[in-house]
Amino acid sequence: MSRTWKVAAAQLGPVHLDTPREETLNRLIELLRSAALQGATLVVFPELAFTTFFARHLFDNPTCLNAFFEHDTNISEASSTKRLFEEAQRLCVDICVGYAEQTPEGRAFNSAIYYSAQLDQVVAKYRKVHIPGTREPHPDLAVINHLEKRYFEPGDLGFEAFRAPRSRQNADGEDDVIMGMLICNDRRWPEAWRCYGLQGVELILCGYNTPAYNPYFWGMSKLMSPEMARSTAVTQHKLVMQANSYMNSCFSIAAGKAGLEDGRYELIAGSCIVGPEGQILAEAVTADDEVVCAEIDLDECRPGKENIFNFAQHRRVEAYQRVVDQVGVTQAGPGNMKG
Amino acid sequence: MSRTWKVAAAQLGPVHLDTPREETLNRLIELLRSAALQGATLVVFPELAFTTFFARHLFDNPTCLNAFFEHDTNISEASSTKRLFEEAQRLCVDICVGYAEQTPEGRAFNSAIYYSAQLDQVVAKYRKVHIPGTREPHPDLAVINHLEKRYFEPGDLGFEAFRAPRSRQNADGEDDVIMGMLICNDRRWPEAWRCYGLQGVELILCGYNTPAYNPYFWGMSKLMSPEMARSTAVTQHKLVMQANSYMNSCFSIAAGKAGLEDGRYELIAGSCIVGPEGQILAEAVTADDEVVCAEIDLDECRPGKENIFNFAQHRRVEAYQRVVDQVGVTQAGPGNMKG
Repeated sequence: MSRTWKVAAAQLGPVHLDTPREETLNRLIELLRSAALQGATLVVFPELAFTTFFARHLFDNPTCLNAFFEHDTNISEASSTKRLFEEAQRLCVDICVGYAEQTPEGRAFNSAIYYSAQLDQVVAKYRKVHIPGTREPHPDLAVINHLEKRYFEPGDLGFEAFRAPRSRQNADGEDDVIMGMLICNDRRWPEAWRCYGLQGVELILCGYNTPAYNPYFWGMSKLMSPEMARSTAVTQHKLVMQANSYMNSCFSIAAGKAGLEDGRYELIAGSCIVGPEGQILAEAVTADDEVVCAEIDLDECRPGKENIFNFAQHRRVEAYQRVVDQVGVTQAGPGNMKG
Repeated sequence: MSRTWKVAAAQLGPVHLDTPREETLNRLIELLRSAALQGATLVVFPELAFTTFFARHLFDNPTCLNAFFEHDTNISEASSTKRLFEEAQRLCVDICVGYAEQTPEGRAFNSAIYYSAQLDQVVAKYRKVHIPGTREPHPDLAVINHLEKRYFEPGDLGFEAFRAPRSRQNADGEDDVIMGMLICNDRRWPEAWRCYGLQGVELILCGYNTPAYNPYFWGMSKLMSPEMARSTAVTQHKLVMQANSYMNSCFSIAAGKAGLEDGRYELIAGSCIVGPEGQILAEAVTADDEVVCAEIDLDECRPGKENIFNFAQHRRVEAYQRVVDQVGVTQAGPGNMKG
C-alpha cells in the first residue's frame, strides 16, 4: 500500500490591522482551492491566520484586543471562521490553521487545530508552548515590540501527537498518519520536536509569523543591516526545520506569513516542506499569498527511525536529566579532572 | 576585555590498519605546529585520532584489538601519545583529542580529553554517550560494518561542561571559557547539546569519523548512489552542527577524519567551525590533513543566550517529561478532541 500524500503549505501575504476579516477569510479559501486544484489533500495555514500579527502592538483597549481572538470553543463552526472549514469539507481537504484562542474562562492561547475532512471534525488542538518576546513594551518607542508574553499564556496541552487518515485515500483508518503541531517559535526548541519524535511522529505541521528585522527580539547585533537580518532569520528558520526533521526522521510543513504587515513590519516568508533526511522538498518563491506543494512518501521516515535514530537502541536517558530538572542555566564547574 | 580566541580544527586524512603509531603521531604534531603558526591556541583533533576507525572491522584476536586502545590512565603522559602533549605545552596551545580508552578494570570507552597548556594538565575527560552501529556484524559480508556497540560501552561521565582559560591570554583565570565535548554521533542528539547549553556552554568541541557511504548504518535507501550518499552525509553533518550551535547560542568546532581509510572506506571530511547564529565560519576544503582556523569572539554567544534562547525565560520543562521518561517510541493516540 502506497503511503504517498500530496500536502501543501499555504503562505499568506500581509494582513493589516484594518483588513476586514471577510477579506482574509476569502484569501485563505482561495489558497485552499488552489492547493486542492494541485491535488493537495492537506493544507497548513500560518499561525494567527485570520488576523495581522497583532502582538507587535500595545493595546490599551480590551475591545480592540478582543477583536483579534476567536471566542467560540469550536472554530470550525464559528460564524467568523466556519466558511474555511465548510470549503475544506466540500473539497475533502484536511486543514491545520492557527488562531488566537480565548476560552470561556477568559484564558488566552496561541492555538492551532487540525480538521480532518474525512472524519468531518477537528481531531486535535495544540496550544503554543514557547511564547517568545516580552510582557512589557520596550521603553524605547523606536523598538519593534513582540508582546506575545503579554497576550498569551504558555500552552497547557503539551506535545500530543495524533493520528488522522489521509483524506480520500484511506477509508478504513488502518493507515493513519502520525502528526504533531508546533507554532512558530516552538520550532526552535528541540525538546518540542523530540516529544513528538518519541510518539513516532511522521509529519510536523508548523505555522509561523517571523519578523524579518527585530534586533531587540532576536538579540542580534544592532549593527546588522535589515537585509542581513532578514537573510539570517530565513536561514535560521530553515535550519531548525531541516535539522529537527532530520533528528526525528519526520517530514515537516512550515507555513508562514510574508511581506509588510500593518504597512511596515516585514515577515520572513520562506514557507517550506522538509523531508526526514533534512532536505527541503519545496519552498515559497514569493513574499505573498502562495501555495507550496509536495508529494511526500511517509515510508521515507522508516530508515531513520529504524537505524541511526532508532531511539530504543541509541538514546541514553540517564544522561539527559538536566533537560527537565533545570529551566535556566547553572554555571559549569572547573572540569572533572581537577582537585 | 576582549574575548576573542583563535581556534582550529585539525582534520586528519586517512590512517590505515597498518599505519605505524609514530607516523600518525608525527602528523598530529605537524597539524598542531601548523595551527600554532597561524596563531591558534586551541586545536581540536578527531575522534580516535591515533588510529584508523577500527570499529568497521571484526577482530577475533583480542591482541589485535588491544593495539587500538590506550591503556594508560593519563594519556598526556603515556609513552605512545605524550609527544603530542609535550609539543602542545611547548607551543602553549590547548588540545582536545579523541582516543580509544581501556580502563584498568578492562572497560572500553570512546573518549576525548581536554588538555590546558596554561594549567599543564588534562582538565576534563568525556566518554561518548551515543554509541552508534551494532554489536554483531552483518551476516552479508558485502556490508560495511559499524561495530562501535561491540567495542565500546556508553559513556558514564554524562555531559559535564568545564571551564578553562584561553592559553596565553588570561593568566588570572577570571575569564575562563565554558566548554563541552561531544564525539561524532553525539552531535546528532539535541539532548546532548542541551545538557551543555544548560550549563552556559560557549564552545562545543567535537571530533568525528563519519563514513561517506554506509547505507546499512545510516538507514539510507540502498538505491542511493555513493556520490549522493556522501553529499547527504556531509550536509547532515553540517546541519546538526549549525542548528544545535544556534539553538544553544554557542560556537562549535568539528574535526573529522577524511579520505579513504584502510584503502577503501571513505570518511566525509567537512571539518568546520560554527558560530552561535548557526553560521559556518570556516571549513575544510580538502579530504586530507588540513588545519581549519577561525578567530571567534565568545561574547557573540550573549545575544542569543539573553534573548530568544534565554532558557530561564522561555523553557517549559513541564512539557518535556517524555524526553527522560521514555527511551523508545510509544505510539500516538487518535487526537485530543476525540471520544
